[in-house]
Amino acid sequence: MTGARVLGVDSGGSGLRVALADAGADAGADAGAPGRTASARSREPVRTGPGGIDAGHLLEQLLGLARTLLDAEPGGGPVVAVAIGAAGMSTLGDRLRAEVPGALARALGVRRVALATDAVTAYAGALGQRPGAVVAGGTGMVALGTDLRGWRRADGWGHLLGDCGSGAWIGRAGLEAALRAHDGRTGGSRALLAAAGAALGPAGELPGRVYPRADRPAVLASFAPEVGRCAAAGDAVAAGILAQAARHIAEAAEAVCPAGAADPASGPAPEIALTGGLFRLGEPLLVPLRAELERRLPYARTVPAAGDPLAGAVLLASALARDALLLPPHPTLLHVPGGEPTGDGDTGTGDGGTGGRRPDTAPDE
Amino acid sequence: MTGARVLGVDSGGSGLRVALADAGADAGADAGAPGRTASARSREPVRTGPGGIDAGHLLEQLLGLARTLLDAEPGGGPVVAVAIGAAGMSTLGDRLRAEVPGALARALGVRRVALATDAVTAYAGALGQRPGAVVAGGTGMVALGTDLRGWRRADGWGHLLGDCGSGAWIGRAGLEAALRAHDGRTGGSRALLAAAGAALGPAGELPGRVYPRADRPAVLASFAPEVGRCAAAGDAVAAGILAQAARHIAEAAEAVCPAGAADPASGPAPEIALTGGLFRLGEPLLVPLRAELERRLPYARTVPAAGDPLAGAVLLASALARDALLLPPHPTLLHVPGGEPTGDGDTGTGDGGTGGRRPDTAPDE
Repeated sequence: MTGARVLGVDSGGSGLRVALADAGADAGADAGAPGRTASARSREPVRTGPGGIDAGHLLEQLLGLARTLLDAEPGGGPVVAVAIGAAGMSTLGDRLRAEVPGALARALGVRRVALATDAVTAYAGALGQRPGAVVAGGTGMVALGTDLRGWRRADGWGHLLGDCGSGAWIGRAGLEAALRAHDGRTGGSRALLAAAGAALGPAGELPGRVYPRADRPAVLASFAPEVGRCAAAGDAVAAGILAQAARHIAEAAEAVCPAGAADPASGPAPEIALTGGLFRLGEPLLVPLRAELERRLPYARTVPAAGDPLAGAVLLASALARDALLLPPHPTLLHVPGGEPTGDGDTGTGDGGTGGRRPDTAPDE
Repeated sequence: MTGARVLGVDSGGSGLRVALADAGADAGADAGAPGRTASARSREPVRTGPGGIDAGHLLEQLLGLARTLLDAEPGGGPVVAVAIGAAGMSTLGDRLRAEVPGALARALGVRRVALATDAVTAYAGALGQRPGAVVAGGTGMVALGTDLRGWRRADGWGHLLGDCGSGAWIGRAGLEAALRAHDGRTGGSRALLAAAGAALGPAGELPGRVYPRADRPAVLASFAPEVGRCAAAGDAVAAGILAQAARHIAEAAEAVCPAGAADPASGPAPEIALTGGLFRLGEPLLVPLRAELERRLPYARTVPAAGDPLAGAVLLASALARDALLLPPHPTLLHVPGGEPTGDGDTGTGDGGTGGRRPDTAPDE
């Protein structure tokens, strides 16, 4: 495998990134991209149509960026594996699962391919192939956990049905508290009302600033940092919103985190990592969140995320290249076509390639 | 004034209704439509465009229905006053305030006109011209109160910014609890998960059933009766959602209800009425709501709503006809062009006809 290389891909709302890396030999259970890595990006998000994520559009961008990276290092070894993480892969990835593996075989001669939802690449980037739970938080919020036999997923249902504790959730709660103060209802915060006025305009104009927008969750989430600032400045209502967000985030982590070994000597404690822009809110969120995690998951160890979802995609591709994939395949969360990789054939969840619409994963399915 | 008649109009999401009634002599402080009333309706909602509610479209429907009613009673007296209640009047009613009074003068010879937001006609229908607070609840929720000197309004901010305790709020909370059960998060309800499955499909399909819809609040509200049923059947999570909704509704009522007289002998206690489809959820909501109102507003008297918003519009028109309007005019909530009616010139909030965009009313503005 000396000289062999892999491609990792991260596709999301801000565009598509591709990384070219040495297949490496150290991707067993450790996080982070192995060896040398070069990356390129397109700021054009892959289109989604009635049939789901547009496979042709993704392939066009991916192959263009891959050729740029390969041309920059003409003496390198062959690309032997590709892992793609994409937002919406679990619900909108049927076309990708059907078309991308064959297209990559034809275009690059690659036969080892993984198609993962972005939560799985976030997991792999944060914790590598170790058991635990990762909370990915930004405008939305989803928790994903594995004991290396199957996946559990919690929340990620969007701003109306869930995403409890996310940026949109915090911002929405902050704006509600601002309007409570405006109305003279209980539970209001004058500080949040002033912050809303500065950020979005007078109370009476807020509905017009929010409802006509197609990106309502992002508009709501744009107010979350103001909630953080008000909490840091001592506003009790804002602090209460962040304390409640911390509870919700910890509830999601608790729902997916594998149990600790009864005898700590029999295996490592599961790890928990927080990843994504939500946690840049800093101490006003992190202080109550650490306390909630400690209370609900005393046996787990909270660790910093080692890398981002692109690093996770590279790690998955490296593991595929070396027949060393420990994270369990799954029909929609981590689709690995063409047979189970060695090492988890009996414990994985199967990758029957059904392409069935299973947007979520039942516990240990 | 014998033989004089009035028109009341109610315009909302389900169309436009017009009632023709005797101007009557009993509309002073009492609710309910006076004398004989005939009504007609169009099921075509009045259009809203970039300039707000379409005045031409409203007038076309209003005048057509009015002529139908007048033609059916050819011997009746002249129409001397018209009151129009419309959803969105406060924020989207500039064109109506600018164009409707003149058009009605030209078409019907009517010079006494009131343009009210639907919350004001709901108030007038429920409590007549007596001081108190009315909570109008359906998919949304707004509370409006008056001491007959000015108006206070609370909530009504829509499903993302407020409408706390509304049908959309209850339904959304019920679906969140269903998905918590699905995920294995705390706070979930298996009963609500089963109800959601029966009403809207499997958990994994819920996002696809909600987010693509333009009428998301109505979709959420459609689940509220299921929350009521689960609560009635003993589900503690569903009952908790309704108890929280009751708190939010009572908070809004508390924010707008005028204070009780220090000496009960010095005046009547303010009244509170609940109106709208939300309260058809019945005892699972009403039992905790009555308790919350009793706790927060012990000096107020909860009474049944006497009539609906159309009856409220007729009552306003009758009061205008007799120079007996006690409810306070307001630039956007209750616009009465052409001078203050007698009796409240010094205590009203002014109806300067500015047409300014003031979607809400500050306390006692």
